[in-house]
Amino acid sequence: MNKNKKIEVAIIVGSDSDLASIAPAAKVLDGFEIAYSINVASAHRTPVKVKSVVSKARKDGAKVFICAAGMAAALPGVVAAETVLPVIGVPMEGKALAGMDALFSIAQMPPGIPVAAVAIGKAGAQNAGVLAAQILAVADAALKNKLDNYRKKLAQSVSEKDTKLQSMGLDKYIEMQKENTRK
Amino acid sequence: MNKNKKIEVAIIVGSDSDLASIAPAAKVLDGFEIAYSINVASAHRTPVKVKSVVSKARKDGAKVFICAAGMAAALPGVVAAETVLPVIGVPMEGKALAGMDALFSIAQMPPGIPVAAVAIGKAGAQNAGVLAAQILAVADAALKNKLDNYRKKLAQSVSEKDTKLQSMGLDKYIEMQKENTRK
Amino acid sequence: MNKNKKIEVAIIVGSDSDLASIAPAAKVLDGFEIAYSINVASAHRTPVKVKSVVSKARKDGAKVFICAAGMAAALPGVVAAETVLPVIGVPMEGKALAGMDALFSIAQMPPGIPVAAVAIGKAGAQNAGVLAAQILAVADAALKNKLDNYRKKLAQSVSEKDTKLQSMGLDKYIEMQKENTRK
Amino acid sequence: MNKNKKIEVAIIVGSDSDLASIAPAAKVLDGFEIAYSINVASAHRTPVKVKSVVSKARKDGAKVFICAAGMAAALPGVVAAETVLPVIGVPMEGKALAGMDALFSIAQMPPGIPVAAVAIGKAGAQNAGVLAAQILAVADAALKNKLDNYRKKLAQSVSEKDTKLQSMGLDKYIEMQKENTRK
Amino acid sequence: MNKNKKIEVAIIVGSDSDLASIAPAAKVLDGFEIAYSINVASAHRTPVKVKSVVSKARKDGAKVFICAAGMAAALPGVVAAETVLPVIGVPMEGKALAGMDALFSIAQMPPGIPVAAVAIGKAGAQNAGVLAAQILAVADAALKNKLDNYRKKLAQSVSEKDTKLQSMGLDKYIEMQKENTRK
Amino acid sequence: MNKNKKIEVAIIVGSDSDLASIAPAAKVLDGFEIAYSINVASAHRTPVKVKSVVSKARKDGAKVFICAAGMAAALPGVVAAETVLPVIGVPMEGKALAGMDALFSIAQMPPGIPVAAVAIGKAGAQNAGVLAAQILAVADAALKNKLDNYRKKLAQSVSEKDTKLQSMGLDKYIEMQKENTRK
Amino acid sequence: MNKNKKIEVAIIVGSDSDLASIAPAAKVLDGFEIAYSINVASAHRTPVKVKSVVSKARKDGAKVFICAAGMAAALPGVVAAETVLPVIGVPMEGKALAGMDALFSIAQMPPGIPVAAVAIGKAGAQNAGVLAAQILAVADAALKNKLDNYRKKLAQSVSEKDTKLQSMGLDKYIEMQKENTRK
Amino acid sequence: MNKNKKIEVAIIVGSDSDLASIAPAAKVLDGFEIAYSINVASAHRTPVKVKSVVSKARKDGAKVFICAAGMAAALPGVVAAETVLPVIGVPMEGKALAGMDALFSIAQMPPGIPVAAVAIGKAGAQNAGVLAAQILAVADAALKNKLDNYRKKLAQSVSEKDTKLQSMGLDKYIEMQKENTRK
Repeated sequence: MNKNKKIEVAIIVGSDSDLASIAPAAKVLDGFEIAYSINVASAHRTPVKVKSVVSKARKDGAKVFICAAGMAAALPGVVAAETVLPVIGVPMEGKALAGMDALFSIAQMPPGIPVAAVAIGKAGAQNAGVLAAQILAVADAALKNKLDNYRKKLAQSVSEKDTKLQSMGLDKYIEMQKENTRK
Repeated sequence: MNKNKKIEVAIIVGSDSDLASIAPAAKVLDGFEIAYSINVASAHRTPVKVKSVVSKARKDGAKVFICAAGMAAALPGVVAAETVLPVIGVPMEGKALAGMDALFSIAQMPPGIPVAAVAIGKAGAQNAGVLAAQILAVADAALKNKLDNYRKKLAQSVSEKDTKLQSMGLDKYIEMQKENTRK
Repeated sequence: MNKNKKIEVAIIVGSDSDLASIAPAAKVLDGFEIAYSINVASAHRTPVKVKSVVSKARKDGAKVFICAAGMAAALPGVVAAETVLPVIGVPMEGKALAGMDALFSIAQMPPGIPVAAVAIGKAGAQNAGVLAAQILAVADAALKNKLDNYRKKLAQSVSEKDTKLQSMGLDKYIEMQKENTRK
Repeated sequence: MNKNKKIEVAIIVGSDSDLASIAPAAKVLDGFEIAYSINVASAHRTPVKVKSVVSKARKDGAKVFICAAGMAAALPGVVAAETVLPVIGVPMEGKALAGMDALFSIAQMPPGIPVAAVAIGKAGAQNAGVLAAQILAVADAALKNKLDNYRKKLAQSVSEKDTKLQSMGLDKYIEMQKENTRK
Repeated sequence: MNKNKKIEVAIIVGSDSDLASIAPAAKVLDGFEIAYSINVASAHRTPVKVKSVVSKARKDGAKVFICAAGMAAALPGVVAAETVLPVIGVPMEGKALAGMDALFSIAQMPPGIPVAAVAIGKAGAQNAGVLAAQILAVADAALKNKLDNYRKKLAQSVSEKDTKLQSMGLDKYIEMQKENTRK
Repeated sequence: MNKNKKIEVAIIVGSDSDLASIAPAAKVLDGFEIAYSINVASAHRTPVKVKSVVSKARKDGAKVFICAAGMAAALPGVVAAETVLPVIGVPMEGKALAGMDALFSIAQMPPGIPVAAVAIGKAGAQNAGVLAAQILAVADAALKNKLDNYRKKLAQSVSEKDTKLQSMGLDKYIEMQKENTRK
Repeated sequence: MNKNKKIEVAIIVGSDSDLASIAPAAKVLDGFEIAYSINVASAHRTPVKVKSVVSKARKDGAKVFICAAGMAAALPGVVAAETVLPVIGVPMEGKALAGMDALFSIAQMPPGIPVAAVAIGKAGAQNAGVLAAQILAVADAALKNKLDNYRKKLAQSVSEKDTKLQSMGLDKYIEMQKENTRK
Repeated sequence: MNKNKKIEVAIIVGSDSDLASIAPAAKVLDGFEIAYSINVASAHRTPVKVKSVVSKARKDGAKVFICAAGMAAALPGVVAAETVLPVIGVPMEGKALAGMDALFSIAQMPPGIPVAAVAIGKAGAQNAGVLAAQILAVADAALKNKLDNYRKKLAQSVSEKDTKLQSMGLDKYIEMQKENTRK
């Protein structure tokens, strides 16, 4: 939330209980030095505020929206109804239906008003950040370079784990993981 | 859609392709002589129109809303966000997920903004009409009497079928049903 | 459970293990100063008692029923079969199928006998309380005012969280949430 | 529906539209020469009639109930609540959720009041008939012999098809099946 | 597992890890003084043993089988293929699919070979015990009396909880429940 | 498929049987005068071709990918693994699992490699076209204007249907729809 | 079903109604000149026959089993319990649960007794044939060459469709598909 | 991971977080003295590495692949696209959809490119090891003997538990299990 830079992405969550789950999106944007706003605004409890948050975000320069919501998860669609800017929807996990409700609500948008659905929960939040960067990079060569590097680091990280696995062997690697968890 | 009477129920469908499925709700209201409006207004394609339809319906006297929508099915929730009048949501069947998507979207509303979800498709539409009447009947003894009669007729209809089954026997009854279908 | 006031809502749970989950409904009704009764009565284990609870509740003035049940969740439908008063069904979460069984049982009522299904678990319980109030408010202007205020407070609460988020920033807000959970 | 013999099984369907689907149960009972009654009675639309049908069936000698219902499918459970005789529940397919709703409603009975759930639709209806016979055969050696023969014929029928397949070869067998369907 | 009495019910579990979940079935049978055997035998790992357990159980007098299995849950069906005695199948919960896999496997038996499916997990286990008793009671008036009493106690237990709730009030009742859990 | 213009979007389908379902995406792009390529290339049957199609599309100027696939639906993810350009995935309906398999496969991408999932089938195809345009419009003000007009026409179309409904009434409107279907 | 060659694969279907759905497996084996037997034998209706078919197939040289079954779909698991040869299970689609029941039953085998599950229906049948060939090719270099060629043809077929699409354009290609369907 | 022996099986996991879940596969292979490699390589994050791991494994002698992946779970299919060697896919459980997403992705492969899906999680991992051994045993009589012994031990282990249960009785057996868990 770099306040001195013009924002490029607007993150909106339907409830402050979604903030911890959406944090990976913010972290990814921080990593790419993409300025963003983040707001709590509920499609059902604060429909007027959603409109004003969307409106303000657009004035502040937002080019992409990331919306996280659980259960009926109307927020991404409601934002998509307000703007032709791309809207990414992150289904929150919820208690009862394990996020299947939110995934259906976000993906199954009617013809004409798309929302880009990503995975349920924190994995989806991280991907929402990356997808927002990919969208911005369509017109930003420097950002595209950063994304290429991000990919390389992702690949490198997997490869390093594989190298470690080859040298440690399966049993010791798992033992190490368990110890790391305990810490 | 008795135009000369003050409406009590406002029916809204997200797409005109939902009209045939919601028709049983209208038929039930006609049966109870409850005046209603019916509009096509999409939460995602015409969010402003939804607001104006809700606003006009309230001015015209609507005390209950019936909203039918498929897929992401945001309409009932969006209407519920605009009014504290009771909102009944009817999940439409759709092609891919057989209405499970719409049912989850309509039932799984966040705390504070309820929607009354009924069954998927035409059965739900009929029940939406009955439920609207039941809600109005809370303060309308004459309507409550009509509902009691409706129930009696429902029960009578089942009983008459049973009587017919007893006299015809299973095989002939099924044969008769097949012939009725052919017609 | 204000014993001195004529009740307006009757809450019935299928098992005393559902009481903690339905409590948010009671709390909402308390907030609106709506008197209610609350009973344990199982559609399958005590069908006669269900009938007498429904009958007594109607005599005591109940205008709306809230029924919570898990698994086969027949209670709301069985109560709906006894009365033309509106019945709200709250699906309990259960262990195995995460409340999907109860949601299907409650929403998929046959034509003619509606139940108003709300969300699974405590979110649904809270909404059952609000929906009951909304139904009563159809003929109670004072209650409608309270509902409008309730909505405003809901919206205000979301806005205050957003204001706090803007002043604290994402990381500190999440840190604060974690500390509150620890307490 | 042999009217001159004391019944042993009582079949109840929630709607006359379920009669064609439950017919295989009746056919199986006919095959075993087990007398049965068959009634239309809805748990939600005719709760009083359900009680009287159950009561009459018990007086007429019924020892096992077969109940078919779709959607919320409360009928088998409601009958089970009325009697300690074994109740077999057959989930009807329905339109929207392909019988998953009825299967969950019928199988997920609360502790103490069992229903014996069988497969969705006509396969389940046939098995309901067989299961009823198996239950009666616990105290009826002659019936047990018939069941043994039924099993032998089932096995024989499969074996004959296999023999035919061996002599015709796969392609001709499938061609024959297609021709039989066309007829 | 009264070893001195002729058994009437044979319980078989697919894995010894299912024993704790099936225990409520055994407890119910104990309560009805119905003698039973209980064996671990896997349809997939010990198909021969399953046959011999079934064969021995029949020789020992078993009239009903209760089979518990998780995941692919073939055991109840495999036992049903060996005998025309009624087979009750209890779906175990498993880790991944929350028992939906086992429920489908047990309920969806092909035409001719029924299994009586009950609820997933311990609730289903208890009901398997009750259903077995109900089946035996078809030819055992004394047992039928016990079942009537069991039902009365079930109903009484619900009623006593309701009475307690009326005297304690909701908040204190929930507080008491929490304290009982802590113990 | 305007061959004389530099492409901006690359559409890839996993099978030529998906072409009719993805056609609405192409039609939308045609409407916005966005040039695109369209190829059949299977992630599983022609992994090398997928790579070369992606590579050629990037050289030809593609800035966004639209990938349609059914069942395991690996294509969108495999393309996303090859490029940091935004990839939109359209789940095809398939026969058995009604597109739920493809939706899960497309939405549930691992952290770091996002795919933008849209609705199942033709509704999703149309939305994929719109979303692609929205992404391109982030850096193309003229296209953004077209999108604003597209939205207005969508809204207008809904409003015109509503106007027609108001003038015709429900019954005649449904009759008209039926006649249009017959043609 | 080349009767003069030693068989390498044994196909078993649980019902002759599965023959048309499993035919693609047979066709693939024919294409690879792999001899196979094909039998109808039901795990539930003819458990003894299943054993004898498995036993005979092993004596006749079978090295891999392909088993197709729907609903509870116990056949693949029951065959796997009889032999340590690899067993491939093909879930049949069924009416009610769209093959989800059979897929769960076949994939969710308990530890120690694997079944190799493939896709639901005819796609899975074709893949069962290919997988059987792949397993046999582990020790058959000539067959491995055939599989490499099969893959090349698969890829070529996709490429040819793409070439046709490039030359015809999307609209004409779809028109051509429609015409082919009409024939 | 016996480094001095030519490998026969190549295990690949999509993430090092899958290693603990796939360990039972490795343990089974160790028990059969089958040499194997194990690598971390992600279909989406390291598509090039997946190719090189597959290529190296084939050069090192691998005849069967075991691939574990969660969520979109593309890894098994991507490996299957690279080789005609048999590929076994193990769906990982994941958080949100309990492994249903991975199971669908792995089982629902398109015609021509099979993956052998096994159960979700550790049970599936163990079975992947056994299935790999069964495939290798098609051309390895000594290994087939080991598999026969493995089966015998499995059966023996079940039988021993049954014997223990018979001598201890149900209550003491469950008590012993609880104590073993506590340790």
